[in-house]
Amino acid sequence: MNLDKKVSLAVIKRLPRYYRFLGDLLDNGITRISSKDLSSKMNVTASQIRQDLNNFGCFGQQGYGYNVELLYKEIKNILGLGKDYNLIVIGAGNLGQALLNYGSFEKRGFRFVGIFDINPIIVGTNIREIKVSDMADLPQFLKSTNVDIAVLTVPKNNAIEVTKIIVKNNIKGIWNFSNIELNVPEGTIVENVHLTDSLMTLTYKFNSSYDILDF
Amino acid sequence: MNLDKKVSLAVIKRLPRYYRFLGDLLDNGITRISSKDLSSKMNVTASQIRQDLNNFGCFGQQGYGYNVELLYKEIKNILGLGKDYNLIVIGAGNLGQALLNYGSFEKRGFRFVGIFDINPIIVGTNIREIKVSDMADLPQFLKSTNVDIAVLTVPKNNAIEVTKIIVKNNIKGIWNFSNIELNVPEGTIVENVHLTDSLMTLTYKFNSSYDILDF
Repeated sequence: MNLDKKVSLAVIKRLPRYYRFLGDLLDNGITRISSKDLSSKMNVTASQIRQDLNNFGCFGQQGYGYNVELLYKEIKNILGLGKDYNLIVIGAGNLGQALLNYGSFEKRGFRFVGIFDINPIIVGTNIREIKVSDMADLPQFLKSTNVDIAVLTVPKNNAIEVTKIIVKNNIKGIWNFSNIELNVPEGTIVENVHLTDSLMTLTYKFNSSYDILDF
Repeated sequence: MNLDKKVSLAVIKRLPRYYRFLGDLLDNGITRISSKDLSSKMNVTASQIRQDLNNFGCFGQQGYGYNVELLYKEIKNILGLGKDYNLIVIGAGNLGQALLNYGSFEKRGFRFVGIFDINPIIVGTNIREIKVSDMADLPQFLKSTNVDIAVLTVPKNNAIEVTKIIVKNNIKGIWNFSNIELNVPEGTIVENVHLTDSLMTLTYKFNSSYDILDF
């Protein structure tokens, strides 16, 4: 950790969006873009983009614009996407299956290596060529397989117990869909997905008399 | 729209989190909380909480703390949760089914009134007592039923066409899981859920040498 350098979460949350847009530009054969054009395509001010990128070094030149491929690669590295990750899904319900079936993850280097459930009707069936394992086999699996990220799609009530098993087996990343805040030791990283929060942002915009700044 | 008052999206994104926490406090019978206690529970600075809430008026008194129920109700209203919403799901795949089966939405006043798909194997079956309708019937349904929000869980390639139908029928809210930016007329509100972005935030934290500010 470099304690002299702090980056706000708002900036970090914008990086994947830059990354997606730059990837689309590359797919369309665009190799150079002015900060003004990038800004109008992304609906963020040019100064915001410059400020965001300046957190990580200088990627553009005044009057010259951005080299799309270079910027794409830099952001890819900042986001830690220069390598592959092994994921397991815990909870083989609709959401767990949806995530496993979602092709975009693999393109970005996220590889699913296991899926677990307690339901005997589901255990033993295949989801996208991965056999659903019994939750009872999870600790042994974690000991014998390199797993970077556990995706939690279990109900709220089971999340704490499952987290204990994950943490005990030194899994460092939890992508948590279980709608409960998890207590984990330092060094374990939890990224929460609260779908209801996103829906509330929508209803806020429906009803608000306030203008919204930023994107 | 009140053009004199602008609230940043970062603030708005924190409101659902305050709302969830205050709801939990109420469930536990806690009626008053100091900004310091709220801050330590939420892992946000007390000054951040005060600043956020000041955007919408003054909810606390120096040395007196927050009235939990009052603050909960105020945030509920700010978020537009004082009324019910009718939702339809377009795309009855795993993700669409997962959302329909997710009990928490209804508790907050989000009521699913229809689900649509093009797959003849799924059309006509029931998901949680709601019959899956054929996409061809969508325009007629939208004309005869009050729908506030369309949830898009169709593949990227179908999203633009479906959006045209939705917009043409004056649906004002789109909750978009289709991983494509939608062009909609002014007055239509789109809230995008980019699951991959969330996963990239996790890998960023895995790899970064930068400290992260805020929550």
